[in-house]
Amino acid sequence: MNANPNESQMLSINSRAARWIPRSPSDNAIRGTCVASVEGATLLDAGINRPGSLAAGLLLAKICMGGEADVSITPCDPGTFAVENGVFVHTDNPLISCLGCQYAGWPIQTDDFFAMGSGPMRLLRGKEPVLTELGLTEPSEHAVGVLESDKYPSASAIALIAKDCGVSPDKISLAIAPSTSIAGSVQVVARSIETAMHKLHELEFDVTSIISATGFAPLPPPAKPGDMVAGIGRTNDAMLYGARVTLWVECDDEEVAELIAEVPSCSSSDYGRPFAQIFKDYEYDFYKVDPLLFSPAMVTIHNLCSGRTFSAGKLDVDVLRTSFGLRASLGS
Amino acid sequence: MNANPNESQMLSINSRAARWIPRSPSDNAIRGTCVASVEGATLLDAGINRPGSLAAGLLLAKICMGGEADVSITPCDPGTFAVENGVFVHTDNPLISCLGCQYAGWPIQTDDFFAMGSGPMRLLRGKEPVLTELGLTEPSEHAVGVLESDKYPSASAIALIAKDCGVSPDKISLAIAPSTSIAGSVQVVARSIETAMHKLHELEFDVTSIISATGFAPLPPPAKPGDMVAGIGRTNDAMLYGARVTLWVECDDEEVAELIAEVPSCSSSDYGRPFAQIFKDYEYDFYKVDPLLFSPAMVTIHNLCSGRTFSAGKLDVDVLRTSFGLRASLGS
Amino acid sequence: MNANPNESQMLSINSRAARWIPRSPSDNAIRGTCVASVEGATLLDAGINRPGSLAAGLLLAKICMGGEADVSITPCDPGTFAVENGVFVHTDNPLISCLGCQYAGWPIQTDDFFAMGSGPMRLLRGKEPVLTELGLTEPSEHAVGVLESDKYPSASAIALIAKDCGVSPDKISLAIAPSTSIAGSVQVVARSIETAMHKLHELEFDVTSIISATGFAPLPPPAKPGDMVAGIGRTNDAMLYGARVTLWVECDDEEVAELIAEVPSCSSSDYGRPFAQIFKDYEYDFYKVDPLLFSPAMVTIHNLCSGRTFSAGKLDVDVLRTSFGLRASLGS
Repeated sequence: MNANPNESQMLSINSRAARWIPRSPSDNAIRGTCVASVEGATLLDAGINRPGSLAAGLLLAKICMGGEADVSITPCDPGTFAVENGVFVHTDNPLISCLGCQYAGWPIQTDDFFAMGSGPMRLLRGKEPVLTELGLTEPSEHAVGVLESDKYPSASAIALIAKDCGVSPDKISLAIAPSTSIAGSVQVVARSIETAMHKLHELEFDVTSIISATGFAPLPPPAKPGDMVAGIGRTNDAMLYGARVTLWVECDDEEVAELIAEVPSCSSSDYGRPFAQIFKDYEYDFYKVDPLLFSPAMVTIHNLCSGRTFSAGKLDVDVLRTSFGLRASLGS
Repeated sequence: MNANPNESQMLSINSRAARWIPRSPSDNAIRGTCVASVEGATLLDAGINRPGSLAAGLLLAKICMGGEADVSITPCDPGTFAVENGVFVHTDNPLISCLGCQYAGWPIQTDDFFAMGSGPMRLLRGKEPVLTELGLTEPSEHAVGVLESDKYPSASAIALIAKDCGVSPDKISLAIAPSTSIAGSVQVVARSIETAMHKLHELEFDVTSIISATGFAPLPPPAKPGDMVAGIGRTNDAMLYGARVTLWVECDDEEVAELIAEVPSCSSSDYGRPFAQIFKDYEYDFYKVDPLLFSPAMVTIHNLCSGRTFSAGKLDVDVLRTSFGLRASLGS
Repeated sequence: MNANPNESQMLSINSRAARWIPRSPSDNAIRGTCVASVEGATLLDAGINRPGSLAAGLLLAKICMGGEADVSITPCDPGTFAVENGVFVHTDNPLISCLGCQYAGWPIQTDDFFAMGSGPMRLLRGKEPVLTELGLTEPSEHAVGVLESDKYPSASAIALIAKDCGVSPDKISLAIAPSTSIAGSVQVVARSIETAMHKLHELEFDVTSIISATGFAPLPPPAKPGDMVAGIGRTNDAMLYGARVTLWVECDDEEVAELIAEVPSCSSSDYGRPFAQIFKDYEYDFYKVDPLLFSPAMVTIHNLCSGRTFSAGKLDVDVLRTSFGLRASLGS
């Protein structure tokens, strides 16, 4: 909303995002977090040794989207969304913020560490098909990312990030939180638009034609620490059964008409059960899950060229309640 | 919310608003916009040669209200409002922000250009009955306005604005977007409070007694470019059938009691059909439409003097769905 | 959300809050307010000689919580909450912001003045059981508070505050508004989380285990000036029958399971009637009202240690409508 050009606009997305992560271990500006140095890299711990916070979750989401989106916590109707709060996102740069930055498409895998990596550092590494296909890249002297993990990155993981991004470890800034933490749950369910963008790209829709987007998803109760299946389950279900996304697009009606029914999660044969259950039914083999499942519950496309609106999908509050563990504990 | 006096408070509303519009054509600070120079005036194009954006729409609304209101995009219930997002406005200066600035009361008409003009520049021109009746005016060396149009203003239009505002063209800053654009739809449906204020003034209620106000209206899908009737139709219907306004007022109960039923749109005999249909039925003669139609669907007045609340009106989601073109395209 | 340490973080909560209150009587930065000097103390009048505003209410809430929370006005569903707007609060420091600062636990009583005092100045005075039991205190050269009153504090009241806080009168900054004003109604219904925190502390739950919190309550129409019973009644009812609070907590499930049913207002035998009626039935003797009544309508606790959620309570829109005086005046 700042109408005047300023220094930060000259910066790369990574360099700008680097400023949002405190660098000093004595810095406790963000409640519920601490700053650590790991092999020269700066790590903002928002849910491992510290409990995290809602503000930390919003910061992780902001970092993860390269600052190219507004993210807020808003009240919602528990009759519709199972819980009383959700995460609302809007962006006028969905290509860069969601597919260039936020999509968790980098499996950071070494002998002694694994986490899915997201955030602007992906733009430095390139390599992922979604990035190369769309030409999403930027040079930067800083690499900034978000890790979903309950362990600090190892020396080998930092070395891998440095090598793949072409920066020295001291130029790496990472924010980390498990999906079972407050901050982790906020930053994951801030991915409603990204999930729609990625699904549309998979369906070979031209995602560069998407001008603006809004998304809302319920904020699930964090799962028990260490129970990663439940953590992934609840945050995924917030998307699959609770997220609504609206996209403003410049395209032909035919392009949308032929695929709108496939965009929301209910187009998948796996739709209908909590994700943790689906995952278990496939013996925890992620690659057996229908990839078409990963999308918001409802997707609406406004075609700016024709004035027509296309919409598909449905919410399922019963699956949300089951997933979030709200049946037994509620008063009734 | 800034508790300390600062330079910007010493500025006229127009001079302050002039700062929010970029002046250099190389400035692309606001996504989806470009800056042009027209006969010396600065033009922020938020939906003609560029697609615009949600952020640009929020900026247009802010400019249009002279910065005297908070405007945001929020999620809403599509069961009530037909769409998933709306524009929420609150102001503690409704007289100046809505009637002094935002009301689109200046028909900028020359041989080769026409647009309805709004924004703080109206305070410089005066002339309109609503401004003279209420004594709303300010001297300023800058003139800042918003135009709803799909064409750039011509030389004669800039000359007219300069003459009527008493400023040289290089002191004019305009933001422009058609109602069929993203930014245009945001800035128009940010007018929920203004619509109520204007109707109350027409009903001869003392609008200077209105202390604070909130308003919400659904954000319609932009109509097809060039289809101005549909563009005006959808944004008007967002008001007539979807907007709720609450006013905090210091007055006598009798003053409110006798007119509350007339304030919302349903008091008009034209209420019940989409605006584009009404307009067509009157053979596109704007002056045949019942002027009492133009008001929010629901209006609530809290009388601070008595503690009593007066409320009238109703939403109509069916008309909204028809107007927004949501029947055929929705899955069912 | 600022990731960088800055001067304001070095300040005490009181000194930081002192900056948010204008010091000069010529300062009219906050609409609907004025600044007065009372015996050397600075007074922001947000609803006595001036009408106040929504922005002033948000500022009072911010001051009252020591700046350790986000407070906003949001639209809501009148079918659920009786009105169209509510106050949404979230904090990652609920102990300090709610019990340390916001709780109105200081009866400022002298020969010629009485008001309930809240805000960070309570941390200087100590004395209240809730503060001493929880060790909530801070040294500061400034004392900042919020008074709910329709009269300016007297000389003796300022002297009492100065003495109890150990500061000179010129270091005292107070913001004042009656519950029957716009600003007063906003700042009171911003207390949803505080009400839950206080009730939990009364129930001997370890409130230091509460990491983060959100709360929402409807914004009632201000009652008639001078009618303090109605003013207290409506704002209390917004909590008792309209507020929803969610807490993220690190605790044992057993601790929550055994008391969750007692946390919301409906656990009280006084639940079910508007507060003003309850108060009248007890012949306006505050101490006869069941202290367990004072709590939000619904409370949800997410236990971060177990991943389990506990929830109890219910909203009652009929009582809200009766309390807010919405029956007779509504059209139907």
